[in-house]
Amino acid sequence: MTPREFSRRYSALRRMVDRRLATIVTRGGPKDLTDACRYVLAGGGKRVRSTLLLLSCEAVGGRLNDALDAGAAIETMHNFTLVHDDVMDHAPARRGRATVHIRWDLNNALLTGDTLLGLAYRSLLRTRSESLPHLITLFTTGLIEVCEGQALDLEFEDRSDVTVDEYFAMIEKKTGRLISMATEMGAIIGGGSRAHVDALRLFGHYLGRAFQLQDDLLDVVAEEKQFGKTIGGDIIEGKKTFLLLKAAERVAGKDRILLRKILKGGARGLGSNRSTVSVVTALYRRTGVLDETMDQIHRNTRKAVAILDALPAGRSTAMLRWLSDSLVHRVS
Amino acid sequence: MTPREFSRRYSALRRMVDRRLATIVTRGGPKDLTDACRYVLAGGGKRVRSTLLLLSCEAVGGRLNDALDAGAAIETMHNFTLVHDDVMDHAPARRGRATVHIRWDLNNALLTGDTLLGLAYRSLLRTRSESLPHLITLFTTGLIEVCEGQALDLEFEDRSDVTVDEYFAMIEKKTGRLISMATEMGAIIGGGSRAHVDALRLFGHYLGRAFQLQDDLLDVVAEEKQFGKTIGGDIIEGKKTFLLLKAAERVAGKDRILLRKILKGGARGLGSNRSTVSVVTALYRRTGVLDETMDQIHRNTRKAVAILDALPAGRSTAMLRWLSDSLVHRVS
Repeated sequence: MTPREFSRRYSALRRMVDRRLATIVTRGGPKDLTDACRYVLAGGGKRVRSTLLLLSCEAVGGRLNDALDAGAAIETMHNFTLVHDDVMDHAPARRGRATVHIRWDLNNALLTGDTLLGLAYRSLLRTRSESLPHLITLFTTGLIEVCEGQALDLEFEDRSDVTVDEYFAMIEKKTGRLISMATEMGAIIGGGSRAHVDALRLFGHYLGRAFQLQDDLLDVVAEEKQFGKTIGGDIIEGKKTFLLLKAAERVAGKDRILLRKILKGGARGLGSNRSTVSVVTALYRRTGVLDETMDQIHRNTRKAVAILDALPAGRSTAMLRWLSDSLVHRVS
Repeated sequence: MTPREFSRRYSALRRMVDRRLATIVTRGGPKDLTDACRYVLAGGGKRVRSTLLLLSCEAVGGRLNDALDAGAAIETMHNFTLVHDDVMDHAPARRGRATVHIRWDLNNALLTGDTLLGLAYRSLLRTRSESLPHLITLFTTGLIEVCEGQALDLEFEDRSDVTVDEYFAMIEKKTGRLISMATEMGAIIGGGSRAHVDALRLFGHYLGRAFQLQDDLLDVVAEEKQFGKTIGGDIIEGKKTFLLLKAAERVAGKDRILLRKILKGGARGLGSNRSTVSVVTALYRRTGVLDETMDQIHRNTRKAVAILDALPAGRSTAMLRWLSDSLVHRVS
């Protein structure tokens, strides 16, 4: 397949997921709640998790249609976390649209998140699979771990002594878990062998790590227009990203004082945000942290892709390879 | 069995639930999240839903132990709703202790609720039953309806034209659903016949209605000390209870003007809260609304209890009868 064909196929899968998501909100429910659930689910996004689930199912010989309800379920669970996380982060916008607590209010954002979680389970329960109880168990473990990951992330906000290892443990739960859960669930629904299921879970694990590191990197290297967010937002907020934690380990003198300050309270009181971001980005470059992040992204992606060799060769396995590669080169 | 024996048995069931609840929080999770989950689950309460589930299981011939995980699950789901509802209602305390968003903060209250929901599903998934997928489907439908009920309740806050029928539709979802779900799930786990499962669901439906009406009534007739909340709190806040809606239908002249004002904005700006509560309570008495509420409570409880005649006679069925009766006579 050509890159253009891969890209077309990806768009087709996204549309399938979007169409399914458009059907899962209960009709005739309370107006604000129903409107907000629809608003969130119609908000687009890359649909990475659901697409990975669908492709993992196909890659082990399953049928795409059998995985669609579970794909919609995981995407809905992901959106539940976004709605509640946006409340916790006081985020005014996401993907260019007002967040639920801004467009409606806090109460509706709480309930919309809660309801989305219910809708996610309901969609998953429509999956026809002998392994349904196992799928629900994975889904539930994933839910609990995502909450724990978010709790760790919040805990990190109040600490300036977070280590790189702690960072990896946090993103493993907060971001990684849903991705490795998606690939594992897809493989189970597709009737994959134990070895294939394990392989796809591990594929998801490495890909999830690369994905999150790429997220951290894009904060400093993306083009603002394509990125859709302020460049350097993580630096301004003193977010404990891989880059900031790693750079803090490597610098001394006044650079060290600067990064410790940012780790404690972000860029507030350090002059203009723009100049702080540019100073810190230069530090990332000079200390080799930027290169190391890119290296980590590529290394994790290579590990992920290498695992795919254990799967039957075919269009879907090729698509998973292409998708991994696209995620490394994404611009937003 | 004597009332004393019933009461002892009820305490024993509560302790069983409490002990199981003490085991369901994940060890080694993020500190604030773990602490808050334990704090909520150790907060006591009547454990009505879980006790009803256990007794329903036994009443159709099942074993108590088989229903304990599901009992803990429904109690945990109930506590998830309390944590999030308390945020939405700005409630500073529950059962004499600070609420999670007060003792910790809003973010931890959000995550604690979300995590409790995950723990609820995880507990339910431990149930050994051929009907597990059906139980999870019921649980999920219940979750979605409870959210819808809460959304309707919030919607009612901004409306002064809520009808008594709308009120019943709201409480059916917000309060009734978890209770009829508890009795239905217990019957299913106990291996009850289709007729017994239907009977116990309907029993829960009528009991849930009586339970909520009693809640509304206690707001005006309870003894403050035993009640643990301010008497007349619902009147002060203009909450659309059965009593307020029914009384508003029946009064004219200046009484009507007063109740319309309360329906619009509570007791604010109407003089001292204490005197408003006493005037409105007198109105409830004079218009016969107090009597009608008591009558409705007794009628629904009688309907519930009558349904129990369709079940095998035995200790648990007798306990369900006794429990229904106790709930009507509760003081808090």
